[in-house]
Amino acid sequence: VHIGDLRTPAAVVDLARLGANLAGMRERAARLGVRLRPHVKTHKCVEIAREQHGGRAGPITVSTLAEARAFASAGFRDVTYAVPLAPGRCAEVASLGRAGLDLGVLVDHPDAVDALDATARAEGVRVRVWLKVDCGGNRCGVDPEGPVGPGVAARVARSGFLELAGILTHAGHAYHCRDRSEIAAVARQERDVMLAVADRLRRAGIVVPEVSVGSTPTMSVVDDLTGVTEIRPGNYVFLDAFQAAIGSCRAAECAFTVVATVVGSYPEAGRLVLDAGALALSKDPGPTHVDPDCGFGRVCGLDGEALEGLRLASLSQEHGIVLATPAGVAAGLPIGTRLRIVPNHSCLAAACFDRYHVADGERVVDEWRPVRGW
Amino acid sequence: VHIGDLRTPAAVVDLARLGANLAGMRERAARLGVRLRPHVKTHKCVEIAREQHGGRAGPITVSTLAEARAFASAGFRDVTYAVPLAPGRCAEVASLGRAGLDLGVLVDHPDAVDALDATARAEGVRVRVWLKVDCGGNRCGVDPEGPVGPGVAARVARSGFLELAGILTHAGHAYHCRDRSEIAAVARQERDVMLAVADRLRRAGIVVPEVSVGSTPTMSVVDDLTGVTEIRPGNYVFLDAFQAAIGSCRAAECAFTVVATVVGSYPEAGRLVLDAGALALSKDPGPTHVDPDCGFGRVCGLDGEALEGLRLASLSQEHGIVLATPAGVAAGLPIGTRLRIVPNHSCLAAACFDRYHVADGERVVDEWRPVRGW
Repeated sequence: VHIGDLRTPAAVVDLARLGANLAGMRERAARLGVRLRPHVKTHKCVEIAREQHGGRAGPITVSTLAEARAFASAGFRDVTYAVPLAPGRCAEVASLGRAGLDLGVLVDHPDAVDALDATARAEGVRVRVWLKVDCGGNRCGVDPEGPVGPGVAARVARSGFLELAGILTHAGHAYHCRDRSEIAAVARQERDVMLAVADRLRRAGIVVPEVSVGSTPTMSVVDDLTGVTEIRPGNYVFLDAFQAAIGSCRAAECAFTVVATVVGSYPEAGRLVLDAGALALSKDPGPTHVDPDCGFGRVCGLDGEALEGLRLASLSQEHGIVLATPAGVAAGLPIGTRLRIVPNHSCLAAACFDRYHVADGERVVDEWRPVRGW
Repeated sequence: VHIGDLRTPAAVVDLARLGANLAGMRERAARLGVRLRPHVKTHKCVEIAREQHGGRAGPITVSTLAEARAFASAGFRDVTYAVPLAPGRCAEVASLGRAGLDLGVLVDHPDAVDALDATARAEGVRVRVWLKVDCGGNRCGVDPEGPVGPGVAARVARSGFLELAGILTHAGHAYHCRDRSEIAAVARQERDVMLAVADRLRRAGIVVPEVSVGSTPTMSVVDDLTGVTEIRPGNYVFLDAFQAAIGSCRAAECAFTVVATVVGSYPEAGRLVLDAGALALSKDPGPTHVDPDCGFGRVCGLDGEALEGLRLASLSQEHGIVLATPAGVAAGLPIGTRLRIVPNHSCLAAACFDRYHVADGERVVDEWRPVRGW
């Protein structure tokens, strides 16, 4: 099947670009001397996770317990669940542990440690725990200089059922960067904050086996991770218009696209309508801090080359509205024309689909099914 | 099961509010003297579609052919597919027609009519066609005053296989309104544009059986639809924070919420983190033209009452970041607390879930499965 013959909207993964992205990050991790524990939230797909480790079920990071269950079933044994655990779901973690999964969870608050400790004790299982540190993203994690971190770490160390795996952070603020030099500064900060926290805990007598960092932007530019033991990039498998805009990658490296069909043509108004809307691309606004006119994705031909003069200006549920400048550009793309959209945020766009069409060039060679839900 | 015991994030439909919303629109349609052909894209759920017609499989509007197939299987016989048809999918329309579905499709371009006519002819089926008119939304549809509309209508009338059902529009620009009086003006425009188009076509000798309009905002305020034959509101079943902000409804009428758990608590920073992110709420920016600080949904307690001082300020894939003003408000909501979020856009948030928990007050009494995909 040719990608231009798929029912649209359709999710297409470019096999060659994917392979290059996976190999590139494996090589970076090896060169930097760190374990690669990729975040599978971007693709949620067993076939890709295996290839991230060159064909084996290596260590991974997940964003939902549904992913933990599915990847455990597929043979993955070493999994970090990198969203703070809801106390009501501690029993599920214990149950996955009893079933043989080496599951690490995040904590950044004494209440969470208490809940987890009580469950682990009641169920008689050991649970691996990572202290989540906020290195500047202001989302989750303890203040690297405050008292909560050492308190939580000591509380974990005292438990007979919890084991401190190490400290972990995510430099979400790398997504506010505008170029590679800004990303490099965030990458240094991410590493330095974590080394300082590890040092502080170790001087307090707490054993800190691992130091885990990672985001696709920072891991795409960092050149020295001395003291760090593992990295957890996720988006690098597919990349997207956002990563290209801030300099994490080149546009030609983006491996995930949505194939859409022109279903409305209004060349006199310089407008086209595609059958890919918010439910196929997500409403992620993209890198507006770098390019206020970025729209909702990059419009390309079926060969993957960007088409000049077209802007995916707005999305409704099932419609993508493309504006053409000059207006006449729209006349060259009649109803029925197939296009490929590089989404702003491939993690959210991929999550719109129940299958990925795997393409060698423009030919579909396989179909992969991702995990969904929680 | 209590809604506070669901695995989170969870989609909850309030049965009493849903029932009132459905009854309200049925009564409005009856009073206005028009057929109600609700758009099921908001819920994509057979149980709700039946209740929209008081328990029977009445006329509906769909946004995907997947919906058309699923609702046809559930006994719905009169369906309008209200997104312009991709030429490559004409054969599916013919196939649904042969299977006994009375399926109407939209056209607004001679190329689309040619493709549909060729397929209908080749397959020997009749297809019902609506001329889509742009009444001001600048998305799809013919210019009400231009030559394309009469040309397309005449082309349909000449075909032995296509039947002109009527003219149809959607006042998408109602979503730019800031209050009920602005919506009322759009509603009048929507009606008046369509009556003028119908008049123009009829004077050209074209039979125009139906005039179809509708959006939830305009149908919530309009008081005179003389000359219109049917309405197609969709969002009114659930409503949402956007509709409440522009005045289509009261906040207390919103029937769809996402139950989330506090998984991160940073009261010193005035911040909470919920386990409902972009994959549970969508990244719809909401009614920023009315309230630039609206955030990504309204934060409520389990009883559905809004909590003061909390703003769902940003979303990442699985995290919702809530900022508290004053900061101390966050301290009252420890880790494990369950909250309900009224999403900005219920159509997109509902599409994140594979099941809806149906609640009588705070008690779950049923579970409904929506249609997904294309």
